[in-house]
Amino acid sequence: MTQNAQRNPPELLYLLHSDPGELAEALEGMRAADVAEALLSLHPDAASKVMAALPFEMAVQVFDEPELTHHRCDIVARMDRRAAVALIEAMSSDQQADLFRELPPAKQKSLLELLTPDTRSGLVELLVHAPHTAGGIMTTELVSVPASFTVAQTLAHIRSVGQAKETVYAIYVTDDASGALVHTVSLRALMFADPSQLARDVGDQRAPLRVQARTDREEVARTISKYNLLAIPVVDEADRVLGIVTVDDVIDAIVREQTEDVQKFGGMEALDAPYMEISFFDMVKKRAGWLMALFLSEMLTATAMQHYEHEIEKAVVLSMFIPLIMSSGGNSGSQATSLIIRAIALREVKLSDFWKIAARELPTGLVLGVILGIIGIIRILIWQHVGLYDYGPHFAKIAFTIGGALVGVVTFGSLAGSMLPFLLKRLGFDPASASAPFVATLVDVTGLVIYFSVATAILSGTLLP
Amino acid sequence: MTQNAQRNPPELLYLLHSDPGELAEALEGMRAADVAEALLSLHPDAASKVMAALPFEMAVQVFDEPELTHHRCDIVARMDRRAAVALIEAMSSDQQADLFRELPPAKQKSLLELLTPDTRSGLVELLVHAPHTAGGIMTTELVSVPASFTVAQTLAHIRSVGQAKETVYAIYVTDDASGALVHTVSLRALMFADPSQLARDVGDQRAPLRVQARTDREEVARTISKYNLLAIPVVDEADRVLGIVTVDDVIDAIVREQTEDVQKFGGMEALDAPYMEISFFDMVKKRAGWLMALFLSEMLTATAMQHYEHEIEKAVVLSMFIPLIMSSGGNSGSQATSLIIRAIALREVKLSDFWKIAARELPTGLVLGVILGIIGIIRILIWQHVGLYDYGPHFAKIAFTIGGALVGVVTFGSLAGSMLPFLLKRLGFDPASASAPFVATLVDVTGLVIYFSVATAILSGTLLP
Repeated sequence: MTQNAQRNPPELLYLLHSDPGELAEALEGMRAADVAEALLSLHPDAASKVMAALPFEMAVQVFDEPELTHHRCDIVARMDRRAAVALIEAMSSDQQADLFRELPPAKQKSLLELLTPDTRSGLVELLVHAPHTAGGIMTTELVSVPASFTVAQTLAHIRSVGQAKETVYAIYVTDDASGALVHTVSLRALMFADPSQLARDVGDQRAPLRVQARTDREEVARTISKYNLLAIPVVDEADRVLGIVTVDDVIDAIVREQTEDVQKFGGMEALDAPYMEISFFDMVKKRAGWLMALFLSEMLTATAMQHYEHEIEKAVVLSMFIPLIMSSGGNSGSQATSLIIRAIALREVKLSDFWKIAARELPTGLVLGVILGIIGIIRILIWQHVGLYDYGPHFAKIAFTIGGALVGVVTFGSLAGSMLPFLLKRLGFDPASASAPFVATLVDVTGLVIYFSVATAILSGTLLP
Repeated sequence: MTQNAQRNPPELLYLLHSDPGELAEALEGMRAADVAEALLSLHPDAASKVMAALPFEMAVQVFDEPELTHHRCDIVARMDRRAAVALIEAMSSDQQADLFRELPPAKQKSLLELLTPDTRSGLVELLVHAPHTAGGIMTTELVSVPASFTVAQTLAHIRSVGQAKETVYAIYVTDDASGALVHTVSLRALMFADPSQLARDVGDQRAPLRVQARTDREEVARTISKYNLLAIPVVDEADRVLGIVTVDDVIDAIVREQTEDVQKFGGMEALDAPYMEISFFDMVKKRAGWLMALFLSEMLTATAMQHYEHEIEKAVVLSMFIPLIMSSGGNSGSQATSLIIRAIALREVKLSDFWKIAARELPTGLVLGVILGIIGIIRILIWQHVGLYDYGPHFAKIAFTIGGALVGVVTFGSLAGSMLPFLLKRLGFDPASASAPFVATLVDVTGLVIYFSVATAILSGTLLP
């Protein structure tokens, strides 16, 4: 906990139980992000009353907090329409777009009509972009100057318009005629430059970093993080600056992507909402899909087992190790998959590294399989000798069947688990869909086949015919 | 892909095959982050030659890239000692500390002796802090002014020292006597302020946000991201500023934590290194531990199966659905676990929400179980009627056994999967250790017990005695 956050909980607790008027007064001493957090735990009815009671300046800042997303929409629906419009007009453009994307179409239309023509047209332009793209998370409040501006002119320009901008620390220099981006200069570099110099001549003279409006937000995050930027310009086909994505938006995007990846890896659709806020029906829907798909695939195990019915009848003892052997395959597969998904996400490995990975996972899987196999063999021998269970006269052969099957299953699990994300990526799916349950299911059927093949090879003539 | 990154691959490809001299020349046109990326794919011998050939300014920037971590250490070991020292002297303090942490103790000592006394003492102070804390990732290159400074004096100070600092966009105002942090002001606010005003009177007058040196880096990341900061000051017990953590360091920390979480969820120790760079032995070691622990726990299934030996002997058909039922429990558990791990990481749920979560997961699990149960029953009835398999005269009872077991197993899986992260957290472990394989193992034994209990209840008197 930070020192700062520690001060809040008692205040918040008090706030939640006092009347909206007092509440707003107490909220004034807090930061916008804290107020937003407090609003999240209030019912939208109460939250909208708090919003109405807040000083306008503070209300705008609170509404600019991306954490409010789902709630913001419910609050607006309950607010006085005129108050809502004033608030929206004062929000930053990326948050306006975010809010409108969540509103029901009817509400969206009725609110749009009340906005000033400028805000409306800006908003309509932003809403064209898909929410997962650079265009979908950019804001249009940036500082740009023509290439003919000197450092002094640029600094004066920042002073005159800067207060309404998302950031003044990166200034975008555009071609006077075409409006195309020609240079990015930092406020820091301008401060140290000769005032009579052209702004475009200050700092790094390489082509400025930029992303296209349709660039995926994950790629935007990667670029900002790789080059340690505070913001990156978003351009159209003609290289004109449409907006900027700032580093704080990117952190939100990274955290959101991360949540999606973890949930997908757990074997379900991404929730797209906080756990506590999603409705029961949506929760079941998001989970049932994959669960049913996995269940239907896993039915193949029942079919596979039918084939080995006679073997099981002859040697019931074989059935006892089915869970152990199957789970070992699933576990080793899950390990390999999580490693590869992450390595792909971080661009540590490429599709073309397929064979290199296979060449690593094969010996890794073998060694892991041998380790588990030895433990398995020892377990059976101990149980037999101590008398915990009688595996019959062929106990040694049974032990080696289990050991051999484990080597095969764990090796196959590691290989299959590492290859699945590649395969999905090659087929155009998200490699993160290669969830632990998906891999386990994939490995289970093969695991049974491996197990009973090893059993037949070792035990035929003794336990098996 | 960004437009910018697209330009690089062919260049890089060329670079990797040309001699170090040419290479360095070509690298000059690239950004530091791109050069660092290129160095990562070179052998340390070649990389150290490239570093030596780079212009000093560029070499420093490249070495300041946190992406180089493991490689940086190998490169320094191969560089001329004098060149290495010059480079280290010019690096930012957080990266110096990062590098020294990775060096073998002998090398560390010999290099420390060659540094200037100032750098050495600064470095020694930084190395005191654990790498997972604010102190461990902070840099000491910050701009601070005494509380008696006016805006004009502060701006002048920034101009005189700013070029050597990590950021000039946040300025820390300290008490003249005690040196304690009293105010944080942004360069932006200073630009719009009256030059004769005191810097400490500009901007937000609330107590400045700050973190303690021992604060966990994850918490630092959360604070920076919550309040949309560009940097946060790190203070000691007396509130004196020790350093700052900047937003770009925090992104690296978030990405690293995310990788650890995904790997843990996959059922292994965090690798702490890129997949392609870790040695074969380390890879096996990181994976074998959990795999063996899971294997040993899973052995309980063999023990459980021994108890049901007679049931299986009487009704071999029951063994055919073991994989299907166990995997369904594991899958539903994995879903629930991934949801809760993420919700805990995002602070959406607290330990005290335990019962609320249980009250949600119970009905969710029931509904999901009923869905799978119905599918399972239909599958058996179809197979029987179409003649794909003959389950005998009691096929309907068998179908209902499978259906009933699925309801029980999936409900238990959802409950156990959601409770496990809480339990681990309560016991002081990382909730992210509640991996998909861990949950599956937990659910497997209980799944068998549920299955055979349902079977006994429904089938005794017919298939079972």
